[in-house]
Amino acid sequence: MYSHCRTGGWILGNTIDGTQAEYVRTPHADTSLYHLPPDADEEALVMLSDILPTAFECGVLNGKVQPGDTVAIVGAGPIGLAALLTAQFYGPVAILMIDVDANRLRVAEQFGATALVDSSGGTAVDQVMALTSGAGVDVAIEAVGLPATFDICQSILAAGGRLANIGVHGTPVQLHLEKLWDRNVAITTRLVDTAAIPMLLRLVQSGKLQPAKLVTHRFALGDIMNAYDTFSNAAKERALKVILTNAKPQ
Amino acid sequence: MYSHCRTGGWILGNTIDGTQAEYVRTPHADTSLYHLPPDADEEALVMLSDILPTAFECGVLNGKVQPGDTVAIVGAGPIGLAALLTAQFYGPVAILMIDVDANRLRVAEQFGATALVDSSGGTAVDQVMALTSGAGVDVAIEAVGLPATFDICQSILAAGGRLANIGVHGTPVQLHLEKLWDRNVAITTRLVDTAAIPMLLRLVQSGKLQPAKLVTHRFALGDIMNAYDTFSNAAKERALKVILTNAKPQ
Amino acid sequence: MYSHCRTGGWILGNTIDGTQAEYVRTPHADTSLYHLPPDADEEALVMLSDILPTAFECGVLNGKVQPGDTVAIVGAGPIGLAALLTAQFYGPVAILMIDVDANRLRVAEQFGATALVDSSGGTAVDQVMALTSGAGVDVAIEAVGLPATFDICQSILAAGGRLANIGVHGTPVQLHLEKLWDRNVAITTRLVDTAAIPMLLRLVQSGKLQPAKLVTHRFALGDIMNAYDTFSNAAKERALKVILTNAKPQ
Amino acid sequence: MYSHCRTGGWILGNTIDGTQAEYVRTPHADTSLYHLPPDADEEALVMLSDILPTAFECGVLNGKVQPGDTVAIVGAGPIGLAALLTAQFYGPVAILMIDVDANRLRVAEQFGATALVDSSGGTAVDQVMALTSGAGVDVAIEAVGLPATFDICQSILAAGGRLANIGVHGTPVQLHLEKLWDRNVAITTRLVDTAAIPMLLRLVQSGKLQPAKLVTHRFALGDIMNAYDTFSNAAKERALKVILTNAKPQ
Repeated sequence: MYSHCRTGGWILGNTIDGTQAEYVRTPHADTSLYHLPPDADEEALVMLSDILPTAFECGVLNGKVQPGDTVAIVGAGPIGLAALLTAQFYGPVAILMIDVDANRLRVAEQFGATALVDSSGGTAVDQVMALTSGAGVDVAIEAVGLPATFDICQSILAAGGRLANIGVHGTPVQLHLEKLWDRNVAITTRLVDTAAIPMLLRLVQSGKLQPAKLVTHRFALGDIMNAYDTFSNAAKERALKVILTNAKPQ
Repeated sequence: MYSHCRTGGWILGNTIDGTQAEYVRTPHADTSLYHLPPDADEEALVMLSDILPTAFECGVLNGKVQPGDTVAIVGAGPIGLAALLTAQFYGPVAILMIDVDANRLRVAEQFGATALVDSSGGTAVDQVMALTSGAGVDVAIEAVGLPATFDICQSILAAGGRLANIGVHGTPVQLHLEKLWDRNVAITTRLVDTAAIPMLLRLVQSGKLQPAKLVTHRFALGDIMNAYDTFSNAAKERALKVILTNAKPQ
Repeated sequence: MYSHCRTGGWILGNTIDGTQAEYVRTPHADTSLYHLPPDADEEALVMLSDILPTAFECGVLNGKVQPGDTVAIVGAGPIGLAALLTAQFYGPVAILMIDVDANRLRVAEQFGATALVDSSGGTAVDQVMALTSGAGVDVAIEAVGLPATFDICQSILAAGGRLANIGVHGTPVQLHLEKLWDRNVAITTRLVDTAAIPMLLRLVQSGKLQPAKLVTHRFALGDIMNAYDTFSNAAKERALKVILTNAKPQ
Repeated sequence: MYSHCRTGGWILGNTIDGTQAEYVRTPHADTSLYHLPPDADEEALVMLSDILPTAFECGVLNGKVQPGDTVAIVGAGPIGLAALLTAQFYGPVAILMIDVDANRLRVAEQFGATALVDSSGGTAVDQVMALTSGAGVDVAIEAVGLPATFDICQSILAAGGRLANIGVHGTPVQLHLEKLWDRNVAITTRLVDTAAIPMLLRLVQSGKLQPAKLVTHRFALGDIMNAYDTFSNAAKERALKVILTNAKPQ
């Protein structure tokens, strides 16, 4: 559980400054860095530093996605899409993508979602129950971090279901134990350990995982404020992940 | 997941009358009954019909108790005590028993609790954190079914901890995801499947599990109203489990 | 572990006659049969009665295939090909198919093998070690049942590897514990439990598993001796699985 | 799988000299050493450097000992006895100890074995089958490293059984796949990873594990040749583990 190492854990961008710089001194580098393969697509591997292990470990592994499962992912942002990409390694028969943004749902379809649920009208739960013939889903992955999205997840769990929370929550949520106490469900949280990076790296190198398609924008490091502006308007800009390069600003 | 069989599951005492009768017709008997060993202590095995598998499956198995773990059990009633008995099969180094009733805590000590926490003053969380040097517990087993006891459980979880809910809840609880989202915890619910009965039976037959000590009172079937009165005042009567016999009422 | 039920287990074709008849009385039918979905492809589902659960449970599940794994399957007959189809549900980066028959290897390639190893020259081990840069494979699935093929499997295991035996063996094999004692490997055997049938059924119904492509020949029940002749010359006839129909013999 | 680290793994006493010296330089010390608790019994913790994690990881964990299991351990030397001590953390109902030496079997009884099997007459398998009513054992732990003792293990496995090899083998063994192919068994090997040391340390500190009783002799470092003589005649000297101290030779 590297994320909770007593010396180590989440340091960069948390207890010290992050890595948006030309040079970075990495604490515990001897035991926390991976070598890039010589022929690697570096942009693709930037996605392996955080977003893909987060989605995979906190969402897919904690959700125990199995062949034949029905999976719902709430939130079609970059993390939700990374969960969508990596959930497919376990052979689910259906992946329902739930979001309020029609653009993001279209991207999800291209990334492999088998059904799209527009939650802007407040009927997401009904739609999911209809799509699953009233049974609910085996795995619900929360990739937003709001009480409303957590609520959808707990309302669509089949008996024996797993709710894997990825979202960063700022407030408590109401847990409906009066409905769930006898439903054999599991609800998990996790700060990414990044223990899955070597596995993900093999999948990228083999071509079976293509994280580069999460990259929609590129900015020079000197142009970083524009990058933040774009990312702040992600829905309007249709931005997923933004790469900073060491090219000169344009 | 027998508890959620589409035909079967929890029938007796739920969708049809229970078994407080001289003769009972059991649905799906061919595939849901176990033969009593010839030399069995029948009273001990009554405990195997519900309370022990419930505590073991929903509490100990779902809580993934491991050798070296620190376990807290909230609620020293019969279910909590059954969890206490069966948690010891996995070699935890500490089992903290939490209850508001001093009598029940004394019983818990006799059953193997390594520390007793009187929660009547509202300081249970502080006591547990002090007993664990601030780390919290690896496993918290909820054996009451109230928001306040669930609250204790979620407040004492160590990073990587498991909260195994056994209690039957009638209202929602507040889940502090704003504190737990990055703590790598799992919260589970379960209706007993009774799949553990054969394993528990072997443990009883070997003498390693002695559920008969949960039996504190016996009543003839014709005396059942007195039995209910006693059970209704369990704390005062120091009642754990009550056996109904087919002896004539006294 | 249904395969070892004390009443039940493997009966048809083992302790009583099998099902090559127009009508069959099935022992324990209430708890051992699955309903066909109304719109099912019945030929595809014949493959779910034995060959697919055998390959999946004894090979893929016992071999614990994981995303990113390198898998070798020794034997490209119907069972080995069924292992090949179902191993892909777990996202391995490479599946090496090993056989002496070039035709079968070509079929394996169409079914998703990423590398083909012709073992007719006795150099299979060297080829696998070269293909894996000397590391060996994470999972070796034995789908033949001979000492020589078991030998290949034990010789190509990486540290931490799993050897999942499916083959029916008639003689002992030599196990090289003098090489394997410190290699953290697991060797498993299993008689199919068919517990995976519901999962496989969902995968077939979703279109993600297409077992019908294992069917190469069809015969009327009255033509069964010709069917056996064909199956006896499987390599020459390029036969995988043979379907018996209730059509009149041609 | 620390035992197979590409830099690291088993170095001391393997690829470089071991630690029978007053001062030792330990490779990778930053990430491979544990701090002694201030109040620790140092002799007890010497047992945690190798013998206890070996017996626990390779025998008990790989054997997946579960509550209610019947376990057989072949070899009542120090490693077998350490497996006996640590298997008890998982609540087995029976632990059968098998050895040719009556003295060692008596020690095993004191350490918690529930049945003793003298294998000197070649009837160990028959005795175990009689003790288990013909069913065999759930877990067989091989703690010797000879074909004959491995043979006992593979002959006493129940359906679904696990054979966990600890012994260091110098020659191949014959594996009876013609009997085992349909028995749903697992055979495992492992070089100790020592990943269990923190767990074992908690168990020692709590008093639930008492490895000091494995220590039968003490010698000063300068007296080491006598220590080796004693250990070479372990059966006659009734020696289990020998401690070297930095006291002056007597």
